[in-house]
Order: sequence, then structure tokens, then C-alpha cells
Amino acid sequence: MYAQSTNKRQKTINSRETARNLEANDYFPGLNRVEFHADAAYEDTLTYQYYNAAERIHGRAMEDWLRPCISFRNAFCHSGGDYPLNSTLCKSWDDGSHTEENYKRRLKAAFELYSKLGVKYWTLYDTDIAPEGDTLEETHHFIDESTQVILDLQQRTGIRPLWVAADLRTNCRYVSGAVTSPEAYITGYAGAQLKKALDIAHKLGAENFLFKGFYEGYSSILNTDIPRELRIYSRVLKMIVDYKERLGYRGQLLLEPCYNYDNSKNHDNFLQHNYIHSITSALSFLKHYNLDRHYKLSVPPGDQLFMAAAYGFLGSIDATNLKHLSDISEATLLFKTVIEQGGIQPGGLNIGVSLARESTETKDLFVAYVQQIDRLARGLRNAVKIVEDGLFNKNLQQRYLSFHTGFGSRIASGEATLEDCEDQARKTHGETVFTSGRTEHWEAVFNRYV
Amino acid sequence: MYAQSTNKRQKTINSRETARNLEANDYFPGLNRVEFHADAAYEDTLTYQYYNAAERIHGRAMEDWLRPCISFRNAFCHSGGDYPLNSTLCKSWDDGSHTEENYKRRLKAAFELYSKLGVKYWTLYDTDIAPEGDTLEETHHFIDESTQVILDLQQRTGIRPLWVAADLRTNCRYVSGAVTSPEAYITGYAGAQLKKALDIAHKLGAENFLFKGFYEGYSSILNTDIPRELRIYSRVLKMIVDYKERLGYRGQLLLEPCYNYDNSKNHDNFLQHNYIHSITSALSFLKHYNLDRHYKLSVPPGDQLFMAAAYGFLGSIDATNLKHLSDISEATLLFKTVIEQGGIQPGGLNIGVSLARESTETKDLFVAYVQQIDRLARGLRNAVKIVEDGLFNKNLQQRYLSFHTGFGSRIASGEATLEDCEDQARKTHGETVFTSGRTEHWEAVFNRYV
Amino acid sequence: MYAQSTNKRQKTINSRETARNLEANDYFPGLNRVEFHADAAYEDTLTYQYYNAAERIHGRAMEDWLRPCISFRNAFCHSGGDYPLNSTLCKSWDDGSHTEENYKRRLKAAFELYSKLGVKYWTLYDTDIAPEGDTLEETHHFIDESTQVILDLQQRTGIRPLWVAADLRTNCRYVSGAVTSPEAYITGYAGAQLKKALDIAHKLGAENFLFKGFYEGYSSILNTDIPRELRIYSRVLKMIVDYKERLGYRGQLLLEPCYNYDNSKNHDNFLQHNYIHSITSALSFLKHYNLDRHYKLSVPPGDQLFMAAAYGFLGSIDATNLKHLSDISEATLLFKTVIEQGGIQPGGLNIGVSLARESTETKDLFVAYVQQIDRLARGLRNAVKIVEDGLFNKNLQQRYLSFHTGFGSRIASGEATLEDCEDQARKTHGETVFTSGRTEHWEAVFNRYV
Amino acid sequence: MYAQSTNKRQKTINSRETARNLEANDYFPGLNRVEFHADAAYEDTLTYQYYNAAERIHGRAMEDWLRPCISFRNAFCHSGGDYPLNSTLCKSWDDGSHTEENYKRRLKAAFELYSKLGVKYWTLYDTDIAPEGDTLEETHHFIDESTQVILDLQQRTGIRPLWVAADLRTNCRYVSGAVTSPEAYITGYAGAQLKKALDIAHKLGAENFLFKGFYEGYSSILNTDIPRELRIYSRVLKMIVDYKERLGYRGQLLLEPCYNYDNSKNHDNFLQHNYIHSITSALSFLKHYNLDRHYKLSVPPGDQLFMAAAYGFLGSIDATNLKHLSDISEATLLFKTVIEQGGIQPGGLNIGVSLARESTETKDLFVAYVQQIDRLARGLRNAVKIVEDGLFNKNLQQRYLSFHTGFGSRIASGEATLEDCEDQARKTHGETVFTSGRTEHWEAVFNRYV
Repeated sequence: MYAQSTNKRQKTINSRETARNLEANDYFPGLNRVEFHADAAYEDTLTYQYYNAAERIHGRAMEDWLRPCISFRNAFCHSGGDYPLNSTLCKSWDDGSHTEENYKRRLKAAFELYSKLGVKYWTLYDTDIAPEGDTLEETHHFIDESTQVILDLQQRTGIRPLWVAADLRTNCRYVSGAVTSPEAYITGYAGAQLKKALDIAHKLGAENFLFKGFYEGYSSILNTDIPRELRIYSRVLKMIVDYKERLGYRGQLLLEPCYNYDNSKNHDNFLQHNYIHSITSALSFLKHYNLDRHYKLSVPPGDQLFMAAAYGFLGSIDATNLKHLSDISEATLLFKTVIEQGGIQPGGLNIGVSLARESTETKDLFVAYVQQIDRLARGLRNAVKIVEDGLFNKNLQQRYLSFHTGFGSRIASGEATLEDCEDQARKTHGETVFTSGRTEHWEAVFNRYV
Repeated sequence: MYAQSTNKRQKTINSRETARNLEANDYFPGLNRVEFHADAAYEDTLTYQYYNAAERIHGRAMEDWLRPCISFRNAFCHSGGDYPLNSTLCKSWDDGSHTEENYKRRLKAAFELYSKLGVKYWTLYDTDIAPEGDTLEETHHFIDESTQVILDLQQRTGIRPLWVAADLRTNCRYVSGAVTSPEAYITGYAGAQLKKALDIAHKLGAENFLFKGFYEGYSSILNTDIPRELRIYSRVLKMIVDYKERLGYRGQLLLEPCYNYDNSKNHDNFLQHNYIHSITSALSFLKHYNLDRHYKLSVPPGDQLFMAAAYGFLGSIDATNLKHLSDISEATLLFKTVIEQGGIQPGGLNIGVSLARESTETKDLFVAYVQQIDRLARGLRNAVKIVEDGLFNKNLQQRYLSFHTGFGSRIASGEATLEDCEDQARKTHGETVFTSGRTEHWEAVFNRYV
Repeated sequence: MYAQSTNKRQKTINSRETARNLEANDYFPGLNRVEFHADAAYEDTLTYQYYNAAERIHGRAMEDWLRPCISFRNAFCHSGGDYPLNSTLCKSWDDGSHTEENYKRRLKAAFELYSKLGVKYWTLYDTDIAPEGDTLEETHHFIDESTQVILDLQQRTGIRPLWVAADLRTNCRYVSGAVTSPEAYITGYAGAQLKKALDIAHKLGAENFLFKGFYEGYSSILNTDIPRELRIYSRVLKMIVDYKERLGYRGQLLLEPCYNYDNSKNHDNFLQHNYIHSITSALSFLKHYNLDRHYKLSVPPGDQLFMAAAYGFLGSIDATNLKHLSDISEATLLFKTVIEQGGIQPGGLNIGVSLARESTETKDLFVAYVQQIDRLARGLRNAVKIVEDGLFNKNLQQRYLSFHTGFGSRIASGEATLEDCEDQARKTHGETVFTSGRTEHWEAVFNRYV
Repeated sequence: MYAQSTNKRQKTINSRETARNLEANDYFPGLNRVEFHADAAYEDTLTYQYYNAAERIHGRAMEDWLRPCISFRNAFCHSGGDYPLNSTLCKSWDDGSHTEENYKRRLKAAFELYSKLGVKYWTLYDTDIAPEGDTLEETHHFIDESTQVILDLQQRTGIRPLWVAADLRTNCRYVSGAVTSPEAYITGYAGAQLKKALDIAHKLGAENFLFKGFYEGYSSILNTDIPRELRIYSRVLKMIVDYKERLGYRGQLLLEPCYNYDNSKNHDNFLQHNYIHSITSALSFLKHYNLDRHYKLSVPPGDQLFMAAAYGFLGSIDATNLKHLSDISEATLLFKTVIEQGGIQPGGLNIGVSLARESTETKDLFVAYVQQIDRLARGLRNAVKIVEDGLFNKNLQQRYLSFHTGFGSRIASGEATLEDCEDQARKTHGETVFTSGRTEHWEAVFNRYV
């Protein structure tokens, strides 16, 4: 319940904040560390029913399979030039100002949230942790100060970044693209930001460094030189590889697609076509410019994830778009894929939530995270049972049996020719016998696990 | 106007058909060769207002830029397992039977259409030209007979295939994929079909050979081994490369994406995910399996086309999906791209039309083709004027000027490092000056050309 | 497993069919009546885990809440001019012919399916039960013969139609609309078909009579007189009301929206705009022409259903589009709505399934229905628990409390004026206090019921 | 070209602004009144090629058919809780503050734009013209001051509001709906705002008063009482009718649908279902609550517009969503409909533009409006030619001829019964003769007008 007009929100920060030392219970005072109770009551939505971090399952601690991670930007930051996410939420720690103090309060509130949720990873963009200064020096100074605050928070909590990224979206200078801007000095500025972000990642011990090209693409081909922009794009991704090496940073490089929004033309912020908007657009770009051994992909759940895994490029999972993971089936399939590839390390599950407009209390934010993590945990438990029972795997073995011997094995090994195929077809024609894929049956079996 | 019940349609083929020799005016008797008249009356929709095949424009005959081509399947065939396109059209030449005679009548009617429209290319699938026999031998026999009919029609008209393709969709044996079926003998059968299709392409002098994987993907991952299927898929595409060489066939190999239809689950015929459903999924597949120097892509108009051209893989254009090319702007941008890459040879523009359900006369079919070709021709004329005036190109030169000297040129050449970027940013920060992209202005200029 | 080429399918009907008397186990010989076992094994997908027809729940037998009904058309018929649903399924009872025998075999197979599934309702279109004759008399004769077969099957099984409808789609004469055709004699033919369909509904004891306007709309406004077509449309719907009265038929009239498919222009079968394509387009049409007291609506699950219930027009539920009801949440919300309005009688739940292309066995069809009915039953059980626990209802009471007294109650009763609002606003301004909607909490509570 | 960092923008307002009197050339100094030149050069995108306001066409001045109107909100205002439209545009007149001065500068800049574009109408929301005060009195005081400024600007320019509306979106108090909030005092506040907005409309001589329910609907049915909210909704719309009468205001009441955005769940600002989201949801609501004789509809171009016209409810046209009206065909069809209903008075064409992100100069804004108005004018000229030539109308007369005599006329008049239909069908069956709709032909004819 809150009593304030929107115009007055800036004045509501409790004055005690700046006056005294911060404790880990300052921003969510009525909310305790979330516990696991398998038999939680219907209305007890601040308890994990499925997520039990330390519980061993399929040979590992649950948290080592799930690797939950909170997106700092999603819950605590003004999301740049875009629509305001969760903008009606009442945030006691945020006065909306661009002061250093406000940035630091956000970080402290965030770490209180992380701790109370019991997660060990977070993700951050450079511009999320400190205000922009009037000069590059000043900006770097602000960042360095915040980095110290973070190091302290990390040390006290044991929480570390899953990835760090440069925010090449928010600042107006990137209106025509950041690394693919038509102005070289803008590309240069983006490069400078990427360098600093890599420095932060190194200092904070981030497991990965992520590149996301929000505005690398075209809003009109009438004023865009696509081949030139693609080439410049590849140059910058190569600079990252090289600098990482010089820096001695050992994290994994990740590339995250950024979707086109051409169907919703009422967004002036989005492009007609983003060069890297799907896992295959990322892959063909990386392979075309010989960058594919340096980067893995950060992908959303669903078909993109299955295909990234099949090509061997699944590096991390992005679950900040709430179209995804709103059902248990998707979470189950996700973990089935993760288990089959032996885990997602050093990646993880980057989680964001999108509150309903009418959800105005911080408790609502907590409930949303608890439920999302719990949904993932339920998916993991289902997936483990599926993998251990082995029904699906046994069916796959059976279904593709014909490729293990004779003509089938020669196709698989690449020895067979079209002439061999013709010989084979001549023999079998007239006696076509095939088995149903039984998709509905397998879906039904799957549903019983869900 | 037609007077028949649907059940009776099979009996309506005029008996004179089989009795006497066919003339080139048998199937569309009231319709003449379409002429070019720049000042056609509003209601004269059977005249080209823009398409003048032999007229020289930007250094070539108009038909050499446009390379219009009629999809035989689209207008004359039952489209396999799918919904019936143009199914309410009254086709005097088609009794719906699977007899050799019916297939041949369709071919003759088609060549009459091609001739009257004045196009020089057509596209065909193997199953479009002959019925399937009880054995592979019989099927091949039917195909060979039809091939003779075609060779004769081609000789008399000078019309040739833009591409030939194997239809790996229609036959029920491909329910679980053709080359990626879980049964090796099905993959073998697909291989046999591909071999025969390559033979036909060679014999008919097709400029290209196209592969399209209608059902190569998964409808459920629960019973699909994706990595295995991808590998097998690549094996078959390699077999095509090798057999083409042995055959001495010089046409270009094309790969055409086949879109997912997961949004419309009421289609039981489509997949949740087709492995090759976009130009980037095609590219990453080709590059992953080292097939990228053998294949180019057949793509639809729009962003896919621009990106295929940027990556150097634009081989041919598919305009059979009527969502595309219903406006002049798209046709204009298409030809701007084609002109800038020096033409689309040996590819072309494969055209299909989709009649309204209530369009029941063959004249409607004619009108649809005339209008589509004319729209393309109008687009071509616009594009030539745009390219020759050079306003857009001059703007591009201007816009990216900063990459031609100094720091910008070092980025472009790959010499610059992130440290250089930082130095540069340190210098320019505080004096950010940039120019508007003026997208609305350039769109307005473009619209005046359209 | 089946061994046949597609071309040969027509010959595969077992010759014993016509020779001897049919038993109720002729078409699905290996499949038994589906039983309820709450603890069915994972792989036992031919058992109900949730649906126990006779079990009393919330004051009624489960089957009286659920009222499951199988769409005859969906599983057993060629679906007219459209894409073939479930076309790769091997149907032993169907030789694809338009003979009376084939129609009757389909009916017998269908009743075997209904009985084995344990459902009491089915839905049918007139053209599904008998072939079209050369004259209206012959058509009626075929229909009458089939009606006798049906009456016999109904008597032996106790199964009745949920609704009967006229198929104003399949026949080519309806290319430009049926009741809204530009030719009066076509409208007349549609009227004749509607009359016969009403006669069948009366004879078979159908609980409802449904009107669905597949092609009542425009594919182009360039050749359509919309106001005239709307008026004619209303005339025909009034004729139905009048004839029903004269006939003494007591079933409920239903109107079912037919969705536009303008987004998928590659369908030549669909309209740019169907006049009745949503529940509100149906409602505004019915109200505009004073037909709203005669018709209720048949609607799909989801927002359309919630709104139809809110307006008091929810007559029956159509769950044949498989985009719907693929998750338990939707099924739960559906039954929450149904329970709150006291049941769906005389309507019911019309069920269709859409098999994956690679599902070729009749067992697959069974599994699909069992799973869909079971999903609904699980939704019903959830909904009952939700309604009985009353948590959501109590929250609603609480949330709207302010409308029960004082100013709020005067708004609700229609006594308040804008001037009263201003007075009220003057008082409360400066002390805005409001409570979060807690949407995430209530979603979480809901998910624990699901 | 601009040189500023985003953080500094607030300081950039030229200090001369507040110091001296404003002239009509203060905000767009380099831009002149837009002139009409039929032969403007390709690059001269600040000239009308088609729009010639005073030119008589089809019996009226062009501006009387077109009634162009600029949405003040679209170009000059922060759009409330939503994504920032045109947020990268450099606006010299706007320092982003909530001061009265800033609001007034925006108004003056806007009237300079209107004047230079040569339009006579604008649209406004109450919150667009003045900041919100701490009390209702203060808010009203600010509004009254701004109203005086507007009256002065209107008098000097002859420009008037097409409509005035209350902004029931921006303020946080409306998170759970405005008139359908679960808290009565919120509904009361909305009522107070509506009263004041009606007062403004009356004072400024607005031709219409518009109601748009941004958040009237549900984001979750779990905490929403839909029937109660619908009833309250209708009460408020009735209060508007009654107060308008007491006030003596003669403008037309308009209801504008507000689309659902359930497909884009990443927007936390939108609803799962808006009660009035299409013209038919508006119509069924109005008719259900007997409000249909008081309101007309404000609709977007396309099918919604055609249907609103067919039902006799087309009151005004909203062209602020840039998905619409990006092609000439749509503009042509729009005016064909408008001409056929004798004009759109007292409504008009409310125009908004959505600049590309990289368009940063005010000149870009001008170009966008000039092109949009010119596109409409071109559509109007096409439509007039189409209507005057009468080809389409003649075809319609011909096509529906059968409804003018005999059986057809009895259907049209409502005299025919289903029995009559059967008699008719008995007669015509066996001699079905029908004419093609010739849709492609008519589309081709139409395209020659475009």
C-alpha cells in the first residue's frame, strides 16, 4: 500500500538511508530469506516449493544445474531509451535521480534481493552501475567507485556476475547503431565502452562477457550500407577477442541475438532488421568472419535453444523476456537439453520478470522471482526424472536404428552416393513399411512428467 | 462463366483433346499474346503497361534484368499434401486424374500460358510432370515420357527451366522428413528422387537445380534426434554436389528455405521447426558443413533478400508467396538490389499467384500473372531511375565518409584496437556532433520514384 | 505400422466390411473402452487419469460439467475446400470415395470411437453424413438414409448430437459467400440446406442448432456491397428463427464466429474479413438486427469465452482449433467460468484434435482424444477446488468493496453525476492510497491449483 | 545537427525564449509555410505535391474532404506511462520539465507547426496542455491558464480542436483501470477529469469529445470482476452524455477502441484484454447498454473503418498508428469510403507520425507530416477519380442484380422463408451457372488509379 503522488516520488527516499550504515535488511524489511518447503500452503507464495539449492539431484547440487541469476537491469534500472519496465512499482530505494548515491542504493537493494532469494549470480550492464559523467574520465571514475561498492557486496555475499555487458543502447549517440554507426567516432566510443566493460568483468570475476547489439542493423535500407556495416561489426567483435587476450581475462565470450520488432512499427526504438536477431543469424555471422571459435551464444528458451545446442553453441540462457518460461513444459524441455549437454557452465539462467502494471508493491517483485525460480526448479526435477527413466532416449535409439547398419550407416558416414540411393530405392519400392512417429503418445507421456 | 457441379468436373474435359493434334491456342482460346501498351485503358487488365521484354534499359534488355519465370506447380498442379491453391478455378485441361494424359495436357496448357505471357523460364518439380508408378522403373518411365513432351514444347517455344527440384513433400512416405527421415530407406528414396531430378535438370537445360526441404525439421523434439538429422542432411546435400560433378551438369545449386508455421498449429502439415527456414539458418548450415561454396540461396523479397545479397549468396528470387510483392515499393527495392549486384543470372524471378476463391475463370489467372509481371517491371523501371540518378548512392558515400580516413579507416581495415578506441573516445568526448539519418526524407524521395 | 502406397489406399478397405454385419469392434479392433485409473503408468496413454464420467463433483456427475463431444468432421471427414486435417492417418474404414457406403462406414467407425471414449455427444455437418446427389431430391434421399443409420447407432449407444450445422463451405457454389452470395439463387440454395439441417437436428434430437458463416464476408471490398450483404445475412438468420418455430424444434440456436485469416494471404480459401469473426462482431450483428434474444454463441476458450460469459451469451464451447487448450491453465480457467455460470447446458465442449503429420496409426487418434478429454477433466477438477476453496472469490469481494457503500454504490446504481465525481475528487485528492492488485501473487496461487 | 549529451538536454533551452515575446517563427526558424507544387523536385520533400487545401474537388474544397488534423500528443508530449515516441528528436522548445512555461512553449511550437503545415485542426488530451498540480484546484488552475494561451493561439490562426479527450492513462492512479478501477474513488477521479475535459472542449469549440479507455480491461481475470466493471464502465459513459447535455455542449461524442497487446507480453503497460479494443467490441458494448445513439466511433484505416461505415458508426479516423496509411492504396480506399458516406464531418483525420530513431532534427518531423498529408491527398484524388468514373459502382450494381427482382427481392425484403428457399433450390439445381467475382481484374483496375 502506498500513499504518494507520482510527482512527489523523488522526495520519498527515507532520509535514514544516507545517514547510517546499511544492513542487509534495509530495503525489503518485511521480507525474509526465501525458504524451501515442499508442502507450502496455496497462499504462501513467498516460499520455494521446488527449489532447494543444496539438494543433490542427478549427481549435482540443484543450484549447479539451475545456476539462477538475476538481471540487475530488469528489476532495478531505467531501461535506457525504451519503455519503462515495471514502472509502476514503488521502489523505496530509488529517487529517479542520476546521482551516484542513487546508483549505489540500487546496488545495495539488489544484493539484498539476491541474498534473500538465495541466488549466486547476477548480470549487469556498465551503465546500470554508475551515472555517465561529462567526460570519459569522469564516467570511468564513477564506474570505478561503484565497482568498489560491488566488490564489497560480492565479498560479503559470495555472489558473482554471470556476465557483464556494455550498454550500447541507452545513450543517444547510438541512434544509428553503436559499432555499426555511420560515424567512425561513434564506433570508437562503443569500443571504449566495451574495453571498460571487459575491465569490469575481469575485476568482478564475471564468468562470461556478453555482447548484445541493440541497434546494429537498419531501420531503412535507403540510407544504410549493409556490407560495410557487417564488416565493421566483425572488426569490433575481433577487437574484443584480442583485448580479452591481452587483458588475461578468462571468461567465456557470449553473443546474444537482439530481436527485430518490425511487426510493431509503433516502436520508434527498434530496427527493421537487426543483423543478429536469431541464433542462426549469429552463427552465420560468426562463421562468415571466422569468429566462431571465440564466441558462444546466449539464447532464449524454445527452438532457438534446441538448435544452439545441436550446433554446439549453447553458452547461456536468457529468460528475461516474459513471453518465455511461463509454463512448466518449456522449463522441463530446457533442462532436458541442459542435462543432455552436461550442464550450462560457465553460463547460467539469466532471469527477469515483468510485473503487471497494477502490481505496485516490492512484495509483488519478490513473489514474481520466487515463482519464476520455482518454475525452473520444477522443470529441472521433471527433466531429471525424464532423463533417468530413459523412456524417451530408448525410443530415440529404436527410432533411428536403421542408420546403424548397412545402407543407413553408409549414409551416416558419408560413403553413400545418389547412385547407391537409387539402387536401394529400386529394392525397397513396393514394400514401403513404416512406423508411426507416435508424437501424441510421446507428448502424453511427457505431460505425465510435467 | 461455367456451368457444372463440382462432382461432375471430371467428366468435362473436352473429348476433342485426345482426338486431334494440339495447337498453341487450345486451352486459352479467347486470350491472346499479351502486348505492351504504355497507355492501356483502366479496364484493359490483359495488357502490359510497364513490361516491354526487348526494350533496353540500363544496358540490357528488360527481360534480362527481370528474368520472369512461371512456377508450373503454383498454377497447374495439385500441391501435394497441402491446401489446394487456386482450387476453385475452372481448369478445362485438368480432369483431376492421375493419368499420363492429364499430366501432359497440363504441360501443354502451361506452355501456352508461358508463350502468351511472353516469358522464357519456368520452374518444375519432378512429381509435377508425371504420375507416380507402382515401381521406381515405372515412375522413371512416366517421367522420361513427359520429358520428351517437354523437350518438344521447349524447342518450339524457346522456353527453359529456371530450376528443377525434387518434390520431397507430397508422397506420404515423407511424413517424418525426407532426407532427415528416421528410416534410412526413406532417405535413400529421397536420394533416388534427387538423382532423377538432377538428370531431368541436365536434360532440359535448367539453369539451376534447387533443393527445398519441406519436412526436414521436427514437429516434436520429443521423438527427434536433431544433431543426427542435421548430419544426415548435410550428407545428402554433399551427395548432390558429387553427383552433379559426375553428371557434368553445369547449373547452379540453390537451397531454398522453407518457413516454419509454428504460429498456425491448425496445420498438421507443417513443422514446429524447419532446419532451414531463413537465409541465415541456410547459411549457418552450409558453412557448418563446408557446403557454402557449392550452393547459393533462393530467397523471398524483403529483408531476407537484402541480407542474402550482403553475404554474397543471393542466387535466385522466389515470389510465389503472395504476401510478397503486392506493392511497388518492394518490387523497386528488389531490383535496386539486383542491379547493384549486376543482375540475378543464372537465377531469376519465380512467380506464383494466389487467386481469390471467387475467381473462377482462366482469364482471372491470366490477369493475375500480367499484373504481377507488370508490377515487377514497374519496380525495375523505378529502380533503374533511382540507380541512374544516384541520389541515394551519393548520400551513402557522404554518410560513411569518416571510415575512409584516419581512425575510421583503421577500424575498417582491422588495425584498430579497443585501446585505440579509448584514445579516440577520450579526444572526442564532450564534442559529440552528429547528423540526422534523415530516414523520412529519404523515404519521401524514394516514394516519389515509386 | 502400415504397408501401402498412397495411390493404392483406395483398394485397401477390407472386403469383409460390406459382406457381414457390423459389430462395435470392427474399426478399432485392438483398442478397448477407455478406463479411468488415477494411477496409470507413464506409458499407458490410453487410460483416463482424471476423467471419471460418473464421479460426482461439485454437485453433479463429472460428465454433466464437462459434456465432452467429438467433432465428427474433424476426425472422420474430408474437410471440404480446405487443407486436409490428419491427412496422413491410415483410416481402414475410408476408401476416399463419395459412395453412400463409405459415408456409412465412417459413421459406424465414429460411433465406435465415441463409445470407446465414453462420450455422449457428437457434432455433425449435413454434408458429413451423406454424399451430394445430382438433384436436391437425391441429396435429401441420401441424407435421409444416413439419418436412419444414425438413429439406429444413437439408439444403441445413447449418444446424441450436441449440435447439427449446415456446411456452407465445401461446395464450390459458395465461392463468393453462401447466404451473402451476390447471386440470390445461391442464397436460396443455402437456405434450402439450412432447412434440411434443421430437420435433421429435430429428428436426431440435437441439443442445439449451429450457424457458422465460413465465407460470409469479403475477400475484396472492391467488388463487395457490405451493407447489402449484412442485411441479407440478417434476413437468413431470421428465417432460421421462424422456421425453427414452425417446426417445433426446441434446441438452442448458436452462432459461431469464423476467424479471418488475412495474416496468411497464402490461403486462397479465406477472406480478408469475415463479418462474424469474433464474439463481439457476432454480438453487435445480432443486436443491430434484433436477433440477440434468439441466438447464443459458440466460442473458443480464452478471452472470447470470458467476454461471452460476461455479456451472458456463452452457449457452447468450441475446442477444435488446437491452438487452444494445450495447457491445463486454460482448461482450468474455462471450467471456472463454466461453474460460475452454473454449467454450459444445453451446450458442451466440442473437441477436435490435430495429429502430427508423422502420426499414421488409428491408435494415435485415440491417444489424442484421451489426452484432450483428460486435460479438460484435470482442468475441471482444478476449477472445482478453486471455486470450493473460495480464495479468489473472497479476494474479489474485498477488492471491489468500495462500490458497495456511499459514493461507490451511487456510481454502481447510476445515480452519480460527473459533478458528484468532481466533489469526490476534490475531497480525496492529496491522500491517494491504493492497494496493489497483487497479480503475480494470484497467478502463483492459481498455479498451485493447476 | 546537434551537439549535446543527453544528460545536458535540460539545460539547452535557449534563454531568449523566456525573455522576449514569441513570434510565429520561433521554433522552426528555417522552415517556411509548406506550399503546393505539383511538380516538386525529387529531393524537395518539404513541398506538397498533391495537397492543395483550397482546390475544389468533387464539389468541395480539398481540405473539407481531408480535414487533416495534427495530434498534439504524438509530436509534442511525453506520452505518459508508455514508451517514448520520437524520443531522440532534438526539440529546442522542450526542456523536459513539468513547468507551466514548458507546457506553454510546447503549445506555441505546435501552433507554429500547424500553421506552417496549413492544417485547421488539432487534437489534445487534458494532461498535454498543463502540468498536474498538488490539488485538483491547482491542476484546474494550470489548465485554465493554458486554455487562455490556446484560445489566443486559436484566434490568431483559426485552428480548432477536432476533439478533446481526458488522459486516463498517464497518472499512476490508473494502474488498475480508470473508470473501471476496483476503487470507487479512482473512478470518481476519472469522472472529475472527464468533466473538466468536457469543459475544455466546450470552451475551445472542439468539434468532438473523445473517450478512450486505455486501461479499461483486465491484465488478469484472476483478480477482475468483469461483469461489474462493464456495468460501471457504462455508467460513466452515460454520465458523459448527461453532463454534455447540462453543459449545452453540441460536439459529437466519440468512442475510440484501444487495442490489446497480449501478443507482446514484454509490455507491462498493456492489458491482456481491453473491453473496447475493436469497432465491434465498441458497438456491442454501446448497444448492450443503450448508449449507441449517443456515440460514434473513431477508427483506424482498414477493415475496421469499412465495417464502422457499414454499420453507420464511422465518426472520425485515427491515423496515428504508423502501421496504417503507409501506402497509397489504403489512403485511396479510406477516401472512397468517406466520399460514399458524404464526408467525415464533424470528424476528421487525426495524424501522427513515428520518426525513425536516427531522425534527430525538427526538419525530419516536418518532412514526416508533409509526406503523410500528401499521401492522404493523393489517396483523395485517386478516390475522387474512382468515384466519378463509376466503374466499380457500375460493377456492384450488376453483380447484385438478382436481388432486385423476384425471389431475390423477397429475400432482401424479409418476406422469403426457408421453405421458399427450398422451392427455389429445387428449381435451379442442376443448372448452377455463376460468374467469376473477377477480384484480380478489379484489383488491377484499382491499381491503375493508385
